[in-house]
Amino acid sequence: MERLDQQLRFITEIDLLKAVLRQTMLTAPARRENSAEHSWHLAVMALTLADHAPPGTDIGRVTAMLLLHDLVEIDAGDLFAYADAAQQSRQEQAERAAADRIFALLPPDQAASFRGLWDEFEERRTPEARFARGLDRLQPMLANLKAGGGTWLEHGITADQVLTKVQLIEDGSPSLGRYARDLVDRAVRDGLLAPPRANS
Amino acid sequence: MERLDQQLRFITEIDLLKAVLRQTMLTAPARRENSAEHSWHLAVMALTLADHAPPGTDIGRVTAMLLLHDLVEIDAGDLFAYADAAQQSRQEQAERAAADRIFALLPPDQAASFRGLWDEFEERRTPEARFARGLDRLQPMLANLKAGGGTWLEHGITADQVLTKVQLIEDGSPSLGRYARDLVDRAVRDGLLAPPRANS
Repeated sequence: MERLDQQLRFITEIDLLKAVLRQTMLTAPARRENSAEHSWHLAVMALTLADHAPPGTDIGRVTAMLLLHDLVEIDAGDLFAYADAAQQSRQEQAERAAADRIFALLPPDQAASFRGLWDEFEERRTPEARFARGLDRLQPMLANLKAGGGTWLEHGITADQVLTKVQLIEDGSPSLGRYARDLVDRAVRDGLLAPPRANS
Repeated sequence: MERLDQQLRFITEIDLLKAVLRQTMLTAPARRENSAEHSWHLAVMALTLADHAPPGTDIGRVTAMLLLHDLVEIDAGDLFAYADAAQQSRQEQAERAAADRIFALLPPDQAASFRGLWDEFEERRTPEARFARGLDRLQPMLANLKAGGGTWLEHGITADQVLTKVQLIEDGSPSLGRYARDLVDRAVRDGLLAPPRANS
């Protein structure tokens, strides 16, 4: 039963992702979202929006990536999407160390396969990874719209900052990218997002 | 974009699953688990424990079922696993009404396919559904062990009550069923669970 013991140790350890809080605010009740429920939401988005992925995309692989992509935050914590370059670089280092520790709880073959999915997500080279990363960018936009501005207003985020994230959505799915661009326009019109700096 | 509007309405609506609290207590921080993070945990369990499913089981289908199985609790709430038969029957009715409403937010073809996965999980006739249901029973056992008794001690649950749930785990996976039986023995020895009534 040693293999199963290792698997269940991993399963018990990852409970901690429910305690990692993100910037995103939920509306009912108003509290910060945690990374476990965020990962669930993304995986359901992958199932629901599968027809917006490029033809031939393996949605099972996308879902698996999304379920695992934030596990490193158990050690590294969540970093706000608009953090500066120095913070992002420290975060990347911390996340790699976390991946080394957490996936190693599993039997070696599974450790390698889960780590492979995590690396694939980070490297954004496959259609699956690009679609998964796009969903990861779209979900907080939907939350901010629902929350009447959310972290956009809280941190004074401008439309051009959000548009750099929309580019990632477009890379994963042209149709979701177009939709996200419309959302940004609507958010600027509704005063939920500061207009692009170039126009202000 | 009408199809995508419907899909995103569903995705926005299901945010509410993050507000549905279960009986299960988390340990760090000590608070009740919500159904969204529970669903995430189950989906990762399906990926991790795939080699304990009967040969030929479609794990992608298991994962999809687990991601969707609790959505009905947005309307129906969560019912404690050891509720009485009358409560269970009222719950089933409420959950069917919830499934009618929530899946109908989607485009008709997707509404039918997601509802089909939910029905399959409930009916427990396929190997995929039986494996998924088994994981849904195993996860709270792991949480109670981690919490030093959790809902078992809180509600005075006896080993024979838990063993009726272990039967469901065994139906989905003989090896996980054996493991769960060992967990019950250990919990009784450690005083986390009242001994079987027949022996007391």
